[in-house]
Amino acid sequence: MDISIRPIAFVLNGRDAVTDDFWGDVISEINLAPEIPEEAFQHIEDFSHLEIIYYFDQVEDVNIVYSGRPRGNPAYPQVGIFAQRKKDRPNRFGLCRVELIQHRGSTIRVKGLDAINGTPVIDIKPVFREFSPAAEIRQPLWVSDLMIDYWK
Amino acid sequence: MDISIRPIAFVLNGRDAVTDDFWGDVISEINLAPEIPEEAFQHIEDFSHLEIIYYFDQVEDVNIVYSGRPRGNPAYPQVGIFAQRKKDRPNRFGLCRVELIQHRGSTIRVKGLDAINGTPVIDIKPVFREFSPAAEIRQPLWVSDLMIDYWK
Repeated sequence: MDISIRPIAFVLNGRDAVTDDFWGDVISEINLAPEIPEEAFQHIEDFSHLEIIYYFDQVEDVNIVYSGRPRGNPAYPQVGIFAQRKKDRPNRFGLCRVELIQHRGSTIRVKGLDAINGTPVIDIKPVFREFSPAAEIRQPLWVSDLMIDYWK
Repeated sequence: MDISIRPIAFVLNGRDAVTDDFWGDVISEINLAPEIPEEAFQHIEDFSHLEIIYYFDQVEDVNIVYSGRPRGNPAYPQVGIFAQRKKDRPNRFGLCRVELIQHRGSTIRVKGLDAINGTPVIDIKPVFREFSPAAEIRQPLWVSDLMIDYWK
């Protein structure tokens, strides 16, 4: 079963290098693809946060593994690809919650998107409070260590 | 730019009809596709919550519009497709945060997945506390009304 999809928008920002950390202050524009009419963004400014599903188009198939240490760090355990968020993954989708700063026509401006310049965007969804986990989030210790500089 | 993707897993549950509400108590199995080795789930049980990206394979192209009233409800405003979460959307991706109940081999059991029986799954990511919005979530009034019965 093959599924064919198309970017609905593209990321424009100053981050051209593929690096791990320091995404918190990055401001990105997301511009709708030419074939998507700007009414697709109608009233999006009523939301403070969005979920962006994007495509890691720089990832090569040969780097996709099913298990490994996050960031290759020997201090972290060997975990499955679906127990980590690394970019070298089946179907190569990234997912990030961002703050919406501005909407104008077919462009939105967002803060804290962890995607580099030119990244194709696959979907954009508004964050509903009702979709946040009701219970406390439990996670292993390596996650907090890995995330120390992520949003700096 | 066409992107080709493949399901990495499939949903197994008792929900065969496409309906809007009452997802909170639904228990689903997610079974890896035969070509994905079970080490892809290694240590996934260290996380309490997962993000599931799935594919609305029952949606027909003709139903995808760029703007409309959520659920066709005349009490709600006309909003762009990227300012709502309805299933009839470009690329047809659903996204839901679920509670992980059990992991055994190539199967996980989750609670609160809003996808019907047989739905193809595109990606699974662990929920990191650090990816939750730091600031308060702001949303329009229609969202809280629409979500009243969603998790019941």
